[in-house]
Amino acid sequence: MLGCWRAASAISAGSGRWAGCLRGRCLFSMAKSKFEYVREFEADDTCLPNCWIVVRLDGRNFHRFSEQHEFKKPNDDRALNLMTKCAQTVMQELEDIAIAYGQSDEYSFVFKKKSRWFKRRASKFMTHVVSQFASSYVFYWKDYFKDQQLLYPPGFDGRIVLYPSNQNLKDYLSWRQADCHINNLYNTVFWMLVQRSGLTPVQAQDRLQGTLAGDKNEILFSEFNINYNNEPLMYRKGTVLIWQKMNEVMTKKIKLPKETEEKEVEVTRTRTKIVPLHCDIIGEQFWEEYPEILAEDS
Amino acid sequence: MLGCWRAASAISAGSGRWAGCLRGRCLFSMAKSKFEYVREFEADDTCLPNCWIVVRLDGRNFHRFSEQHEFKKPNDDRALNLMTKCAQTVMQELEDIAIAYGQSDEYSFVFKKKSRWFKRRASKFMTHVVSQFASSYVFYWKDYFKDQQLLYPPGFDGRIVLYPSNQNLKDYLSWRQADCHINNLYNTVFWMLVQRSGLTPVQAQDRLQGTLAGDKNEILFSEFNINYNNEPLMYRKGTVLIWQKMNEVMTKKIKLPKETEEKEVEVTRTRTKIVPLHCDIIGEQFWEEYPEILAEDS
Amino acid sequence: MLGCWRAASAISAGSGRWAGCLRGRCLFSMAKSKFEYVREFEADDTCLPNCWIVVRLDGRNFHRFSEQHEFKKPNDDRALNLMTKCAQTVMQELEDIAIAYGQSDEYSFVFKKKSRWFKRRASKFMTHVVSQFASSYVFYWKDYFKDQQLLYPPGFDGRIVLYPSNQNLKDYLSWRQADCHINNLYNTVFWMLVQRSGLTPVQAQDRLQGTLAGDKNEILFSEFNINYNNEPLMYRKGTVLIWQKMNEVMTKKIKLPKETEEKEVEVTRTRTKIVPLHCDIIGEQFWEEYPEILAEDS
Amino acid sequence: MLGCWRAASAISAGSGRWAGCLRGRCLFSMAKSKFEYVREFEADDTCLPNCWIVVRLDGRNFHRFSEQHEFKKPNDDRALNLMTKCAQTVMQELEDIAIAYGQSDEYSFVFKKKSRWFKRRASKFMTHVVSQFASSYVFYWKDYFKDQQLLYPPGFDGRIVLYPSNQNLKDYLSWRQADCHINNLYNTVFWMLVQRSGLTPVQAQDRLQGTLAGDKNEILFSEFNINYNNEPLMYRKGTVLIWQKMNEVMTKKIKLPKETEEKEVEVTRTRTKIVPLHCDIIGEQFWEEYPEILAEDS
Repeated sequence: MLGCWRAASAISAGSGRWAGCLRGRCLFSMAKSKFEYVREFEADDTCLPNCWIVVRLDGRNFHRFSEQHEFKKPNDDRALNLMTKCAQTVMQELEDIAIAYGQSDEYSFVFKKKSRWFKRRASKFMTHVVSQFASSYVFYWKDYFKDQQLLYPPGFDGRIVLYPSNQNLKDYLSWRQADCHINNLYNTVFWMLVQRSGLTPVQAQDRLQGTLAGDKNEILFSEFNINYNNEPLMYRKGTVLIWQKMNEVMTKKIKLPKETEEKEVEVTRTRTKIVPLHCDIIGEQFWEEYPEILAEDS
Repeated sequence: MLGCWRAASAISAGSGRWAGCLRGRCLFSMAKSKFEYVREFEADDTCLPNCWIVVRLDGRNFHRFSEQHEFKKPNDDRALNLMTKCAQTVMQELEDIAIAYGQSDEYSFVFKKKSRWFKRRASKFMTHVVSQFASSYVFYWKDYFKDQQLLYPPGFDGRIVLYPSNQNLKDYLSWRQADCHINNLYNTVFWMLVQRSGLTPVQAQDRLQGTLAGDKNEILFSEFNINYNNEPLMYRKGTVLIWQKMNEVMTKKIKLPKETEEKEVEVTRTRTKIVPLHCDIIGEQFWEEYPEILAEDS
Repeated sequence: MLGCWRAASAISAGSGRWAGCLRGRCLFSMAKSKFEYVREFEADDTCLPNCWIVVRLDGRNFHRFSEQHEFKKPNDDRALNLMTKCAQTVMQELEDIAIAYGQSDEYSFVFKKKSRWFKRRASKFMTHVVSQFASSYVFYWKDYFKDQQLLYPPGFDGRIVLYPSNQNLKDYLSWRQADCHINNLYNTVFWMLVQRSGLTPVQAQDRLQGTLAGDKNEILFSEFNINYNNEPLMYRKGTVLIWQKMNEVMTKKIKLPKETEEKEVEVTRTRTKIVPLHCDIIGEQFWEEYPEILAEDS
Repeated sequence: MLGCWRAASAISAGSGRWAGCLRGRCLFSMAKSKFEYVREFEADDTCLPNCWIVVRLDGRNFHRFSEQHEFKKPNDDRALNLMTKCAQTVMQELEDIAIAYGQSDEYSFVFKKKSRWFKRRASKFMTHVVSQFASSYVFYWKDYFKDQQLLYPPGFDGRIVLYPSNQNLKDYLSWRQADCHINNLYNTVFWMLVQRSGLTPVQAQDRLQGTLAGDKNEILFSEFNINYNNEPLMYRKGTVLIWQKMNEVMTKKIKLPKETEEKEVEVTRTRTKIVPLHCDIIGEQFWEEYPEILAEDS
């Protein structure tokens, strides 16, 4: 919407006095009101109140995208950090996001139970999240990928899910983090086999077919001398974004009325900032440490 | 989705043999399956079959955005052409878009009645459209705005509407084009009053309060010597994007087996390309000229 | 809703002057308004405009019900006629039903494309249809089943489906009539084998396993001397209910001012009545004969 | 659905061997499968998991119905008891109803959070409730209304609402009980004014316009010597239906192997029965007394 004069125009368009409306283009206003019935075809997609609203987005064809942009395998720090930068932008620009969780090429945004943003319309939540994320991805690309050019604008798909209880929400986030772990363990071994042992992707896949987590840890340790538990937390746990109150100490120059010279004073302000964490969110500890995330007035 | 090895991993994760699963990280697989019930909370949002599916997107806070980026008023060719470039990208990258229509900071995409893309899931249509559009907007910005820097990544909102009959669809598009006309006429006069007559925005708004189309035409003509009908079609009609079959003549060098030298031959290929038009779509003429847009197998 | 005084009460309950509201039961009004937020949890279930709305109902556990009430097999005229009587009541009492089709223990009701009854809310359509049908079933039972007592109140289940085009609707009704045919042919042979040849139900089922329509016709003809095509149309085609204009000739006694004696005169009135038909609705002939059913203003 | 042979028929209809399918009626099976695409138009209406599912029904045009059947005003015990009998039948016949609440011509049924009845499809819940209620209303009418004939089959409308938390559910039920109170107080005074003071309905309405609860209590007391708090609980509180475990002591005659004579023994069996209560459900006391209603495994 391009702003206030459209509203004004809309008002005058519908404002009556059609009597003299015989000349010229006035037919358009009449035409418009004749066509306006099509608005009734729009369905109401209000989310059930008092439920957590989760929007999860996924990169579209990011397998191909990651190859064309030479992502480091199995994890590319530039790509992961860009994803998190975009998620932070989404969280900052949109209302009522209590927590976000990302891994690989996906990010989940959790809107507060009591949120009334855009009357809880599902389409608004989904499209604002994915469009803000997508434009940020291109906008901030060069800050992370430097001289690696972005070859084409990427797409993202999104979905929305409601969770009635706190336990349901925690289980949702746990599900994504367990998924992160399983994929990352698999990918870590897979790419070791390909990059270090020279297996083809198909051979590596065959080798891993049917292996359990313990087997994969064993391969990593015995063949590559890697203790999976020492792999970076960001890879193993993904990224959690939460709001944190921060005390910011700033130096301000002020001139008191009676004095002639400026003076430097320290001012402490409390600001709420988005903080990325790479910790376990499956256990209870995280939720006990940050009780405000699930707090009732949330 | 980051591709095939995730699928592979998903398979092995769910592939049974838990017997030996006592050591180490295997707990994660069990955990994941324990949490997986949360998938059932996702609602089915399949669109009713045999209806036209329209996704319309709008710039978020584009009033402010257009000021910050010094859009020319009432119409900025760079901005309009960038919108159309993004819409073309959407049409090219996504499946089954029969026609698109744009004006100001909005664009509507019409998916074919019979489309089975992503099983007709509403969230897929909406999020793919807006994310592709948003990333393209940033990606192609510099091609249109040159040295005018993009200050921040813009957002877009989207909605989806179903239209059961061809008439409903035509009325929808007519509604948008009538809206384009009404707004553009208003804005053209409004900005003349501001830019040429030196009125403040509030004064201009007051002056136009309650005026009919004929009155606005009159002001344009008598005060600014502008015949509204001579204003550029793109401003007055917006932009229609359709698929057109094109014959492309290419020169190819070939060497016939018996000959020693290469020879240039002309090859004609039929390609389907997206073509922008700035024509009336309210009357029947457009639909008679391009009957394939609404064709039953569409 | 028990009528106008509730509305009145609702008005006064919300009508302001809480100042003196300190004594007694006034707390209830405050309580009510405190709880009223729960209304927001009700979802909008408006049907897409310009689509045919079909509500189909089915008897619940009618296999058991038909045995307990000794329905004649394979077809019980009393049961079929009672179903049709109930469907007629539904069609008479509810608004905008253009056509209904029934067979066995199911009935489909088709609401007009343009219907605005109860703002097209799906729950209203479904619940009014099934509740009116269910209460009528018990109410009219004795008119059809005479001394066969109704042992318990039966249940019905209902669903709602939208069809955008006339062809979709015709195909829906054709689907139900083809289903009627297939089931009735099967049941006719099945019960002949059980009733006349003394097979057990399991034996009869085994005998029919894998047979085609032609085989079943052949069994009927060669073993039971039945030409299936001579079976009653109501069994083979089900029942179609449509509105028909009727000329009713009534005799009225009137006394003209100048005359002393009453005089009998014939008055012709046009009334619209529901008419049951047992004809083919799969072919085009039916729709050509009754074009008003699908007429655009429908 | 009329039972197992339809399933059988469905199987054989789809079972293949079309080779010889050239004669006779086989066309119908082909036709049916050709039409079967219409099933895809049915929308999924699964209720969000882990929410309380409330179905509320209302009598259709019960103002007129109550007049035509000479309901005693403001409360008719026969009508209220019949409503409760029907609600009990619904609770008995359908699965997973934890509690029901009724007043006037409405009844609410609360299905358990974890219910998986009919895969939580909203249409199934609604239509089973209202059809069972409606057929029961006619079936049991004569048990309550004796010689007062039922003149026509009544209709009911239903709706479905989801409540994510226990508090939301309790607030819903409180809302209905507060509504019961407000209406009943109003109606009690209104009908006193009409029946005892001889006011017309319009005069009575005018008299009550703008009165608060305290005013109405005062009118009842000073003009009719009625203490509203002594009115029957069923009128003031409505009816709550809950499941209660009962010990049933039965006398059984048994003959022990070694003995020659039969012996009477007392057997105690625990049965779960539906119990009607007329108590306050707005305060906490009720929920503390019957914690199993909201219990987590509910």
